[in-house]
Amino acid sequence: MNENTKKREYPAIGPSELRQDPVSGEWVVIATGRARRPHDFASAKEKKDLQPRDACPFEVLFPDARSVYALGDDGRDDDWFVQAVPNKYPAFVEGVCPVLREIGPYRAIDGIGFHEVVITRDHERSIGAMTAAETELILRVYQDRFLAIKKDLCVRYISVFHNQGPEAGATIAHPHSQIIATPVVPPDIGRSIAGSGAYFQTHNICVHCATIAYERRAGERVVYENEHALVLAPFASKTAFELRVLPLRHEAYFEAAEASVRLGVADALTVALARISEGLGDPDYNFFLHTAPVGEANRFGHYHWHIEIIPKTAVWAGFEIGTGIEISTIAPEDAASFLRDITV
Amino acid sequence: MNENTKKREYPAIGPSELRQDPVSGEWVVIATGRARRPHDFASAKEKKDLQPRDACPFEVLFPDARSVYALGDDGRDDDWFVQAVPNKYPAFVEGVCPVLREIGPYRAIDGIGFHEVVITRDHERSIGAMTAAETELILRVYQDRFLAIKKDLCVRYISVFHNQGPEAGATIAHPHSQIIATPVVPPDIGRSIAGSGAYFQTHNICVHCATIAYERRAGERVVYENEHALVLAPFASKTAFELRVLPLRHEAYFEAAEASVRLGVADALTVALARISEGLGDPDYNFFLHTAPVGEANRFGHYHWHIEIIPKTAVWAGFEIGTGIEISTIAPEDAASFLRDITV
Repeated sequence: MNENTKKREYPAIGPSELRQDPVSGEWVVIATGRARRPHDFASAKEKKDLQPRDACPFEVLFPDARSVYALGDDGRDDDWFVQAVPNKYPAFVEGVCPVLREIGPYRAIDGIGFHEVVITRDHERSIGAMTAAETELILRVYQDRFLAIKKDLCVRYISVFHNQGPEAGATIAHPHSQIIATPVVPPDIGRSIAGSGAYFQTHNICVHCATIAYERRAGERVVYENEHALVLAPFASKTAFELRVLPLRHEAYFEAAEASVRLGVADALTVALARISEGLGDPDYNFFLHTAPVGEANRFGHYHWHIEIIPKTAVWAGFEIGTGIEISTIAPEDAASFLRDITV
Repeated sequence: MNENTKKREYPAIGPSELRQDPVSGEWVVIATGRARRPHDFASAKEKKDLQPRDACPFEVLFPDARSVYALGDDGRDDDWFVQAVPNKYPAFVEGVCPVLREIGPYRAIDGIGFHEVVITRDHERSIGAMTAAETELILRVYQDRFLAIKKDLCVRYISVFHNQGPEAGATIAHPHSQIIATPVVPPDIGRSIAGSGAYFQTHNICVHCATIAYERRAGERVVYENEHALVLAPFASKTAFELRVLPLRHEAYFEAAEASVRLGVADALTVALARISEGLGDPDYNFFLHTAPVGEANRFGHYHWHIEIIPKTAVWAGFEIGTGIEISTIAPEDAASFLRDITV
């Protein structure tokens, strides 16, 4: 073969597959032709020394924390296990409801809202190393803060998320989550709500309930299940080893989840994070809640709240950023099979 | 202040601003309350040794490269400056046009398409260090490959992008771009086309032309301009120091750009990348082309092709991944002011 023939010659590998998320309508590429085995995804990062306790901004903050909410493992708040505090560098601040401004061809609105940090007391122990009962306390703080913030009339959406490790954007090593309330419904949430609503109109069933039923029959993408929750590697995984924790019972609104559901989801979340940590060499990760926007009672009743976990196994590059299509190099079926067999 | 008062207390800083992209409809947060000065964004990465020439897969590939297209700086292809080759690990491969499959609640389609790599001969010199005439040769290869790939009847969109450095997802240090042709219109492109079409319907002018006219009058977000192209820090910048290179003349289809426009855009792209490199300590970056999808002649005539440059100055974390709203900690006006004054 020489240059002048200009002949296209690809290596003989199977084609990839484009898969569409039934809720968001987003496409992903499952490119197993570039396949690596699950172990090849193990985090190769050098474990840097954990930010020492005396350099940790949270440790310095205590015991004078300006807590807005604290919860102890005995249910009292004077010997706290987890607490919520205002973010010292908030991206959104409380204020009067903002008005949309038109500026030339553009639109802008003041960043009015809430930005809180949910901190567990232990400087080192991340959620994957907790008990289900401990993780349930964290979900309870999310939920109680959610209920308090929701009363503000400017708030349109409340986002709860957790960044673990520098590759996942955490600037503080001490485990913590964040709660951000925004005066607009974020675009990704808007699209998912629209997709969920359209599916409900057509099929008369919640798209997440249909997914849960289908996946429990199919089995190949199920990682873990308990009485109240299912851990899935999604059919249209955006990244390798992405996992979703879905409560089995239909509920649009996270803030309405009962104690038993919270405990079931907490158990599933803990197991999912522990297996990712054990199986993939303790990678950094993000997880976040998706739930119905704040609004009139049950207006978004077709939605189904859940948690999405994104381990940092890849870097977003030009194709992903430029098109919104993500390329994942392991099939979710293989990721699920690998994670099902991890014992923690 | 003690814990029991549970009083919210935020530091006294100005509120952030949510800004909406007039094309995609996406929202971003400009959180200058967390403000840093431009120099604080300078890349702190340790400059690793460049992948040595004898370990570079591209250097090994030559001179037996299975080139599909080569271009020399004298216009002949036997002493090539830049060439296109098939990707050795393609995410999309050529084949018969794929059919959408329904699988339970899901949809999938085979990854049929094209995946090529555009390589410049010099092992080290990146685009910011080239002359405008050299960068024009790269754009010409993009364009000629675009025209060739476009003839395939399965192709719906052709994505051209460039990843520079490991933080931007480049696994090979030798400068190169990639061309991926997909059998679906990617979601981000679809939304931008829809936004552009809606703006045209309402205002009877292309949204990018309106933006160019507004920004040239306003001046504060303009970084550089020549006879054919404008470099802007976008009003709704997704990341700190994001830049867009817009051809001044309205043209929906990149593949239709004339030589003079290519040269003007090449000059603007080169200047933009050189200033980012000089001003921000040579950060890794992605850039990509946005252009109208492949389709019937002029069906997407309201669109306006351009190049977007995203320096890696931040890590996407849980809020960004979970909501689609990105938080940028420098206002584009300040980024533009800083980059306007850089001399290269």
